[in-house]
Amino acid sequence: MKLADCLDGDRFWADLLAQAEIGALTPRGLRRLALDDNDNRARLWLIEQGREIDCHAYHDALGNVFLRREGRDASLAPLLIGSHLDSQPSAGSYDGTLGVVAGLAVLRTLHEQGIEHQRPIEVVSWTNEEGARFAPGASGSSWFAGQRDAASIVKARDSDGIRFGDALDHCLVILEDTEGTTFRPEPYVPHAFLELHIEQGPVLESQGVAVCAVNGIQGVNWYNIEVHGQANHAGTTPKAARRDAFMGAHALIGALKDAVAEQDEQVRFTIGKFSVSPGSTNTIPQSAEFTIDLRHPSQDVLDALDTAFLHLGEQQWAGCSVSLEVASRVAPVSFDPALMEIVDSSAKQYCPNAPQLVSGAFHDAIHLAQRCPTAMLFTPCREGISHHPDEHIERADAVVAVRTLASAVEKVLAP
Amino acid sequence: MKLADCLDGDRFWADLLAQAEIGALTPRGLRRLALDDNDNRARLWLIEQGREIDCHAYHDALGNVFLRREGRDASLAPLLIGSHLDSQPSAGSYDGTLGVVAGLAVLRTLHEQGIEHQRPIEVVSWTNEEGARFAPGASGSSWFAGQRDAASIVKARDSDGIRFGDALDHCLVILEDTEGTTFRPEPYVPHAFLELHIEQGPVLESQGVAVCAVNGIQGVNWYNIEVHGQANHAGTTPKAARRDAFMGAHALIGALKDAVAEQDEQVRFTIGKFSVSPGSTNTIPQSAEFTIDLRHPSQDVLDALDTAFLHLGEQQWAGCSVSLEVASRVAPVSFDPALMEIVDSSAKQYCPNAPQLVSGAFHDAIHLAQRCPTAMLFTPCREGISHHPDEHIERADAVVAVRTLASAVEKVLAP
Repeated sequence: MKLADCLDGDRFWADLLAQAEIGALTPRGLRRLALDDNDNRARLWLIEQGREIDCHAYHDALGNVFLRREGRDASLAPLLIGSHLDSQPSAGSYDGTLGVVAGLAVLRTLHEQGIEHQRPIEVVSWTNEEGARFAPGASGSSWFAGQRDAASIVKARDSDGIRFGDALDHCLVILEDTEGTTFRPEPYVPHAFLELHIEQGPVLESQGVAVCAVNGIQGVNWYNIEVHGQANHAGTTPKAARRDAFMGAHALIGALKDAVAEQDEQVRFTIGKFSVSPGSTNTIPQSAEFTIDLRHPSQDVLDALDTAFLHLGEQQWAGCSVSLEVASRVAPVSFDPALMEIVDSSAKQYCPNAPQLVSGAFHDAIHLAQRCPTAMLFTPCREGISHHPDEHIERADAVVAVRTLASAVEKVLAP
Repeated sequence: MKLADCLDGDRFWADLLAQAEIGALTPRGLRRLALDDNDNRARLWLIEQGREIDCHAYHDALGNVFLRREGRDASLAPLLIGSHLDSQPSAGSYDGTLGVVAGLAVLRTLHEQGIEHQRPIEVVSWTNEEGARFAPGASGSSWFAGQRDAASIVKARDSDGIRFGDALDHCLVILEDTEGTTFRPEPYVPHAFLELHIEQGPVLESQGVAVCAVNGIQGVNWYNIEVHGQANHAGTTPKAARRDAFMGAHALIGALKDAVAEQDEQVRFTIGKFSVSPGSTNTIPQSAEFTIDLRHPSQDVLDALDTAFLHLGEQQWAGCSVSLEVASRVAPVSFDPALMEIVDSSAKQYCPNAPQLVSGAFHDAIHLAQRCPTAMLFTPCREGISHHPDEHIERADAVVAVRTLASAVEKVLAP
């Protein structure tokens, strides 16, 4: 009998509801900020579940927690699966947690069925994926994958001025006092990494598909733009004498939109912040500031738009000059083709019409992909809503998704 | 010899500098908020100047102060000239004050030259033209002209919670204790009203003209607009699923600009406030709010644009609905043609190329025009800057402007 078929869907769902109690909001939702009391309790909950099924836990210098099911050859690099248990301040109960609990369900099934495997398998919960309390996010996974060093991560402070490093030390003390977990200071290079996550977008729901393979993560460029005009009286300043920063920004954004429209439909172009100064109804704005979030799966497209944006930022708009600053550039990631083939074929066992999606959001997998073969699975969430207590997934979809993960695990572990 | 030719330009300029000491900012500028200690001291200064030239003062229920030079027939309606002595929080020394000090210069000249006139002449300083401490402004003139009642004016509170009525009572007690001024509770209907003011725009400076007639004040409509979208993840939400309130606002504003462009160059269209919510770089805006300040000298043009704006506000923009609210509509004012002919011919004595301007800003004259023949004169200010300590006028221009006012007064007073 296949691993996926033996998986106890009721037990999986009960686990998902149980973890959602830790930091639950009323009437629904979750608040489990990285390294806060609830986030630490969630670690202990995971370690305790592992103890019940003879999976020893390990924790590392970043507070990442791993449940290990030993293989016949303990020297082989483990297959790693998981996601994160921390949340946004006012979140749902599935973002991140689904991937950890799904990994736990796979371990439970292996245990219950007494299935042996050559290679060890570990389920991980990464520290501070969200970046909501300490920015930036994906702290645990980026450190583990050698993408960021601990010294820079621990310097971050939350809005109360608490250092990441101090909150982490507190967490590590708790873990040291906990039975069933052992400190493992160094990262390792996994055999592969698999992450199941909610889509956080509307595509799968609209297609009626319960699970699909994710073939990569979009690249994203962030820009900060300021348009410099001249404040003046709205009534007395004739048209020819105006240097209206709002009108400059409006014209510039028109040109930016035109540049975006020359690319394909996959471009995502968002102006999420926009403000004018001094901000008075009868005063021509002196300046206008806004941000751009630009995403695409192709580095070539991002580069073409980057060049176009920088060129437009050098021009005058409605008599106003522009400062355009690149705040960050993150390259797109394409997942490992062989691993993609495994997760895609697993998804299509259950959903023959499953598409392959590109992730528009970041995930821990973006860092693991730099270290080992990596792939992801998505399952739909209602109306694409996440980072909100209204985040919702259908139980039947989630059970299909976790069986798909189990099927992929079985294929990766096969000798 | 003509009244204008006898006017002592040095004395006028000395008066202008003397009043600028009351509430002076360092290193330059003025802060004389309506009914504050400095504004009250400015009233007393004006009354004292009147006493020196045998002009008795009157004050009314709104704290407006009038210096009266009696006519041979005291029963005739006075010719009224003046402006205001209050200022914005961080202002220059000429906005409003120029018109009052110019009126004083005319009275001084009539006194020095012993010129008699049939009709009385009064110089007024109106209370709270600026509206900076108590909104809205033009309190004294609007009440005097019967456009607003005292009960609604005194209810206003400043940012410290102080009632206009309480500040006014304090001012009136000071005036009652002052020698040389008499309480005159009721407004009267002037024979005519003349106001000299700085242009607060760049036209006269650019044309090298020291003074010109103003033939009216633009009408102005204010609108509050909200565009309603749907917040969502900037990375995961495909183009077809977006209802981006910023992009909706951008498209709507493009259409508003097109409607404005169909009218003549005199339209002034300003978006002075603009904000998006929730205001996060990687979140599609849920809503965008902005204001419109729309001005034109012609009611027909304002009505045409009003209709167009309301129509555009009923449509969907980038999948977003719109709420468009008219915050206020103020009709344009055209000044009295006969009085305009007098001020225009007076200006052209000194500046043959003097244009006739429409005022883009409000002035006390907008209310007086509802009550009696009214006209205005403008003199240039550097770079059109006002409401700022950098506000600056050239002494030579100002002297020409005050002589022009004297010339117009002489014509109006002529039997």
